[in-house]
Amino acid sequence: MLQSSLPAVPLLLPRHPSSFPATWSPRHNSKSRSPRSCLVQEEPDRAVEPEREPPPRRVSTQLNRWSRARSIRSGRRIDWPALRKKTAPPPSPAPPPSSPPSEASVRPSVAGEGTEGDGEDDESELMEGKAIYMVSDGTGWTAEHSVNAALGQFEHCLVDRICPVNTHLFSGVEDMDRLMEIIKQAAKEGALLLYTLADPDMAEYAKQACKVWGVPSADILRPITEAIATHLGVAPSGIPRGAAGAPLTAEYFKRIEAIDFTIKQDDGAKPQNLDRAHIVLVGVSRTGKTPLSIYLAQKGYKVANVPIVMGVDLPKTLFEINQEKIFGLTINPVILQTIRKARAKSLGFGSEMRSNYSEMDHVREELEYANKIFTQNPTWPVIEVTGKAIEETAAIVVRMYHDRRQKCLMPRISKRFVVFSGNMR
Amino acid sequence: MLQSSLPAVPLLLPRHPSSFPATWSPRHNSKSRSPRSCLVQEEPDRAVEPEREPPPRRVSTQLNRWSRARSIRSGRRIDWPALRKKTAPPPSPAPPPSSPPSEASVRPSVAGEGTEGDGEDDESELMEGKAIYMVSDGTGWTAEHSVNAALGQFEHCLVDRICPVNTHLFSGVEDMDRLMEIIKQAAKEGALLLYTLADPDMAEYAKQACKVWGVPSADILRPITEAIATHLGVAPSGIPRGAAGAPLTAEYFKRIEAIDFTIKQDDGAKPQNLDRAHIVLVGVSRTGKTPLSIYLAQKGYKVANVPIVMGVDLPKTLFEINQEKIFGLTINPVILQTIRKARAKSLGFGSEMRSNYSEMDHVREELEYANKIFTQNPTWPVIEVTGKAIEETAAIVVRMYHDRRQKCLMPRISKRFVVFSGNMR
Repeated sequence: MLQSSLPAVPLLLPRHPSSFPATWSPRHNSKSRSPRSCLVQEEPDRAVEPEREPPPRRVSTQLNRWSRARSIRSGRRIDWPALRKKTAPPPSPAPPPSSPPSEASVRPSVAGEGTEGDGEDDESELMEGKAIYMVSDGTGWTAEHSVNAALGQFEHCLVDRICPVNTHLFSGVEDMDRLMEIIKQAAKEGALLLYTLADPDMAEYAKQACKVWGVPSADILRPITEAIATHLGVAPSGIPRGAAGAPLTAEYFKRIEAIDFTIKQDDGAKPQNLDRAHIVLVGVSRTGKTPLSIYLAQKGYKVANVPIVMGVDLPKTLFEINQEKIFGLTINPVILQTIRKARAKSLGFGSEMRSNYSEMDHVREELEYANKIFTQNPTWPVIEVTGKAIEETAAIVVRMYHDRRQKCLMPRISKRFVVFSGNMR
Repeated sequence: MLQSSLPAVPLLLPRHPSSFPATWSPRHNSKSRSPRSCLVQEEPDRAVEPEREPPPRRVSTQLNRWSRARSIRSGRRIDWPALRKKTAPPPSPAPPPSSPPSEASVRPSVAGEGTEGDGEDDESELMEGKAIYMVSDGTGWTAEHSVNAALGQFEHCLVDRICPVNTHLFSGVEDMDRLMEIIKQAAKEGALLLYTLADPDMAEYAKQACKVWGVPSADILRPITEAIATHLGVAPSGIPRGAAGAPLTAEYFKRIEAIDFTIKQDDGAKPQNLDRAHIVLVGVSRTGKTPLSIYLAQKGYKVANVPIVMGVDLPKTLFEINQEKIFGLTINPVILQTIRKARAKSLGFGSEMRSNYSEMDHVREELEYANKIFTQNPTWPVIEVTGKAIEETAAIVVRMYHDRRQKCLMPRISKRFVVFSGNMR
C-alpha cells in the first residue's frame, strides 16, 4: 500500500546496500499512523498557553500583520527581495509531486491530549502548525539552538498563532535506515528537514533523499564548516562530535568547577569566597541573579550572587574584593512586582509575607535602597534587566567583563582553540 | 597612511552615508597596534595548556595527520571531494589583493602573556593561529554555538596544534560603523568572518564589504532562515531577537522555576519534593549529577539528583514516585578515580579522607554497590557517562524521557512554537 507509492531513493552509497528501501516495514507504517503518541507533548520548556484558542485561518493577512508588526517595532523599511520573491505567493502546503499519500490519516495530529486530528487536510495543517524536523547525528543541541534562533525571525507570526510551528528533534541519528525513515515521515507530514550530519555520506544522502521525496531541506552547519575548511586549509573530519570520547580536558573540569562553585555561592552564601569568583552579581530579590549566575557558570565563569535586602548589611568582603568583578542588576518596579507576585503565589506565601515582598511601596523602596548602594559604588556597572532574557543580560555581563580585562577599543571576546569540548552537535 | 590603501566599500545603503569610510581614524589604528590588550586572554572556559609548547610549522603534514587521525578513529574512508579540491593546495595566508597592509606591526599577537608577536608574517600567523571573527547583532551565543560545533569537525588538527584557531566574538553589533571597523580589522588580521545579522541591510553590507576587502565570510543563519521562510510562506522580520523585549512569557517563568527547583534539590536535598521533579538522577559522587541537572534545568526540566553513598540509605520517597522519571548514572572506575583525585586535591582533603574517597578499592566497591541498586530497580535506565560530555548525557536523558512519555516507534522530541523566548542570537 503506502510503500508502493513512495519512490525509491537512488542508491548513492555503497555502505548499506541491503538496508533500503526494503526496511520500511508495515510495522513502522502502522505505528506511525497512531497520531496520539508521536507528536506534540506538553513540554516542560515550552509555553503552550492552553487557555488561548487557535484563531481561525487568516493566511492572507500574514504579510499585512508582519508588515504591521515590523513597522511598529522598527519604524523603518526592510527589504528582503530574494525572500519576498520566494514567499509570495505563499506556497500551498500541498505535498510535493513525487511524494507520499495525502491520506489525512497518515498525518498525525499535533493537537496533543489524545485528540484524533485526522480532519480536513489543509485546515488541520494550519491549526496544527507546520512541522520542522531537526536531524542530528549527535545531541541535536546545535540544530535546536540554530532553529530557535532562526525562528526568532518569525516571531511576528508565531506569536499571533498565524503560522504555528512544531519542531521535532531527532538526535543520535547514525545510520541510513533511520535517516530514511525520518525523511519518509517528513515527506508524509509535509515537514521541512534541517540537519547536521558530520559524515559527508550521510549529509549527501539526506540531501538527495529529500530531493527525491520532495522534502525541503537545508544543511545547518555546511556553510560554516566549508568556510572554516577553506580558511584553515584542512578538510573536516566527517566524524560526529563525541565519537572520539574523552571530554576530560582541563576545560571540562573548569566548567564543572565553575558550576559547583556557583551553586555553592548562590544567594549570598559563603561571602568569604567572593574573591574566588570571576563575576559577582548584586541585586534585589527576583532580578534574575540565580538563573544568570547558572547560565554564566555553564560558560565557565565562577559566579557569586549577593542579594540586596533592606535592613541586611551587604557582606564586608564585597567591598574588599576587586570591584571590577561586581555587576549590579536593576529592574522596572512594575515588572518586578509582577514577577514577585507570581513568585509569592508559587511559594504559597501568606498574605502578610506576600504584601511585604510584592507590595508596590515595598518594591519601590527596596529598588531605591539598591540604587543608593549602586550610587555609592560607582565602579559597579548597573544593568537594567527589564525586558531582557537571561541570555541577553549574560551577553552584556560577559562583554563588560572582557572589556574591563582587555581595555581595548574594539571590545571582543577572544578564545584560543587548542583543545576544546564545548557545545556538542 | 593606512587609510589610503583601504578601498572604499561601495555605498549600498542610504542610512549612514557620512559614516564610512572616514571613521577609520588613526586613533583606532594606533590602539589596535597594541598587541597585548586586544587579543587572546586566558579564558575561564577554555583550556590553554600553558605547559605545551607550540610545535614547529609542519603544514605539509596536515593532511597526512588528518588522514591518520581519521582512519584511526573511524576505520573507514571519508570522501569530501568538494572540500578536498578547495583545500588542496592549502591556501597561503597572504592578504587578499585589494586588502590592507601586510605590515607585521598591525597584526596583533595572539600569544597572550604580553609577548610582542610582531615577527615574521607567516611564522607568527601559524604560531598564533588563524583568526575567526564572529559578528552578531544580538548576544552572539548562536554564532558561538555554531562555530564551536563546526570546529568540532577540525578537532584532528586543533588538538595537535597544527592549525590553532583563535575566535573573536563581537556581540551587539548594531550599526554600520562598528560593522565596518570589524571587517577592516578582519582584513588586517586575515580573519574569516562569520556573522548573524537579522537586519537584511546589515547582512548584505557585511557580505559586500567582505567581498571588497577580501575577507572570507559566511552568513551563519541565512540558509536556515531562508528555508523556514519558504516553508512558512512568511518573510523574516529582520529584527534582532530581544529587540522586541518582553521575555516574561510563561516559558520564561518555567525555566526560572526549573533552575530554582533544581538548585534546591541538588545533592539529595529535600527528598520530599522528588515527586515534583521531571527527572531524577541517581549515582555515586562525581558522576556528573550536578552539572547534568543544571544543564537540563536550563532547558526547562525540573531535576533532582540523589547521591548513592555506601552506608547511607536512599530516601524512601525515591521508590514511591513515578519510577519512569529516574535515571541511574554509572562510570568507569579508573576514570572516576582520576576525577575524584582531582576533586580531592581541589577541595584540599586530608590524606585519610582522600583515600576513602578516591582509593581504587573504595571506588570499585561504591560502584558495585550502586550497580546492585540499579539491578534491584530495573526500570531505571543506567547511563554510562564515561567519555561523555554533559551535553551528550543530557541528550540521552532527554531522548529517553520523551520516548517514555511518547511511547512511539520514531523517538523524537516535539515542541509547539507559539510563544517562545529560547536561546538568543
